[in-house]
Amino acid sequence: MRIALYQGTPHPLDVAGNVQRLREQAQRAAEGGARVLVCPEMFLSGYNIGLSNVRRLAEANDGPSAMAVAEIAQAHALAIVYGYPERAADGAIHNSVQLIDQHGRSLCNYRKTHLFGELDRAMFSAGADHFPVVELEGWKIGLLICYDIEFPENARRLALAGAELILVPTANMEPYDFVCQVTVRSRAQENQCYLLYANYCGAEGDIHYCGQSSIVGPDGSLLAMAGRDECQLLAQLEHEQVRRGREAFPYLTDLRRELHWLKN
Amino acid sequence: MRIALYQGTPHPLDVAGNVQRLREQAQRAAEGGARVLVCPEMFLSGYNIGLSNVRRLAEANDGPSAMAVAEIAQAHALAIVYGYPERAADGAIHNSVQLIDQHGRSLCNYRKTHLFGELDRAMFSAGADHFPVVELEGWKIGLLICYDIEFPENARRLALAGAELILVPTANMEPYDFVCQVTVRSRAQENQCYLLYANYCGAEGDIHYCGQSSIVGPDGSLLAMAGRDECQLLAQLEHEQVRRGREAFPYLTDLRRELHWLKN
Repeated sequence: MRIALYQGTPHPLDVAGNVQRLREQAQRAAEGGARVLVCPEMFLSGYNIGLSNVRRLAEANDGPSAMAVAEIAQAHALAIVYGYPERAADGAIHNSVQLIDQHGRSLCNYRKTHLFGELDRAMFSAGADHFPVVELEGWKIGLLICYDIEFPENARRLALAGAELILVPTANMEPYDFVCQVTVRSRAQENQCYLLYANYCGAEGDIHYCGQSSIVGPDGSLLAMAGRDECQLLAQLEHEQVRRGREAFPYLTDLRRELHWLKN
Repeated sequence: MRIALYQGTPHPLDVAGNVQRLREQAQRAAEGGARVLVCPEMFLSGYNIGLSNVRRLAEANDGPSAMAVAEIAQAHALAIVYGYPERAADGAIHNSVQLIDQHGRSLCNYRKTHLFGELDRAMFSAGADHFPVVELEGWKIGLLICYDIEFPENARRLALAGAELILVPTANMEPYDFVCQVTVRSRAQENQCYLLYANYCGAEGDIHYCGQSSIVGPDGSLLAMAGRDECQLLAQLEHEQVRRGREAFPYLTDLRRELHWLKN
């Protein structure tokens, strides 16, 4: 399966413009043979937009923006993963990511469980204990968002539930380049999963994003890595690489879950 | 506190020679102002020595080799961390590491909990659920051995128990260079701990060790890193760096332990 990653600057508050940008990126990804396109955290609204804007722009996971993304996914026969501010049924607002499949159906909606500092906490409620793993074209996929990946427990939880590919929309900023350069590679290798880390570049208010989005193999090798400019990355995933990796590094088998893990 | 790391080739089966080498390295470390010296996994006996030799050379944690190390520690007023095959009271043989303080007292004995492949499993029983954190000269210290550090749960367990410094004697071989280059940096940063990874270089039977021992700061930066030759590394640790790191990356506070961890 070929996957695509879009790294771009945020266009805050311009939902219609961001949907249009998603449409262009989806076309390009489909032309490149990709079956999935992944965009950054809070891509539809921008990230550093403050509570009142988040309240105004938040939508249900089947709201009008989701419908627009579903139409794009169908048009290009391409699954799309995008970040957005979600208004839950109980009125809470979450920092969410949705995976819409190539038929325009929602396969998965994940709410960020580990909120980052005052920035996140001022805008969002944390997600509950829900780390879904879904199947797309024979690949078991889990979603995390930005700060979530910095905690090894979250990626491990997905891998223990069978994930072979972890998709991480993010909005990672200077001076946290270490996460792009080291942490994401460690997470992929320690779980023997493919990992895709889709970041912003450019600035948004006083935030300077650090780019360096990447697609990492199950052995921690960099299949593709962006610099600090706008780009689309593509990589080919092979089940055989996951199988070989888990044979060479049987971490998921050798881990003594009974020593540490709540859920065995 | 200044700490020292010895990277050398294994001298298999030569316990007396290895004790003598430890004496020389201890003198050098003390002259460099170090308060702790850390040697590789199974340093006293060599690692790739097979079951019958392990059975023959295994000692109690207060056996004659421990006494010899205690004498060296006292002579140089230096704490020493060394690996050895341990014969437990119940007769089981463990891959163990002991921390003997500058007064010659055993502060901590850790038995490898995560055994590596057939090599370890043919020789050792796995350690029980015991991840001690001890205090030396105002520093809270945890021990792990080699493969243990590749599982994020083990280092996290120590950090959650208060460790600020994790000492990891290892026998890491080609082709697992990734662990030296990426994993140990991630573990330090994700736990905001200093981490010392003391490896062998050279060969032992059909094993080629990959060297690249390191001392890593709580922000994941390399304070010192060896190549593939024998050497002693030194680094200065500062509590202030741990405090600052934990302020900048409050992972241990922000982690939602109730989602994943058995022991809250």
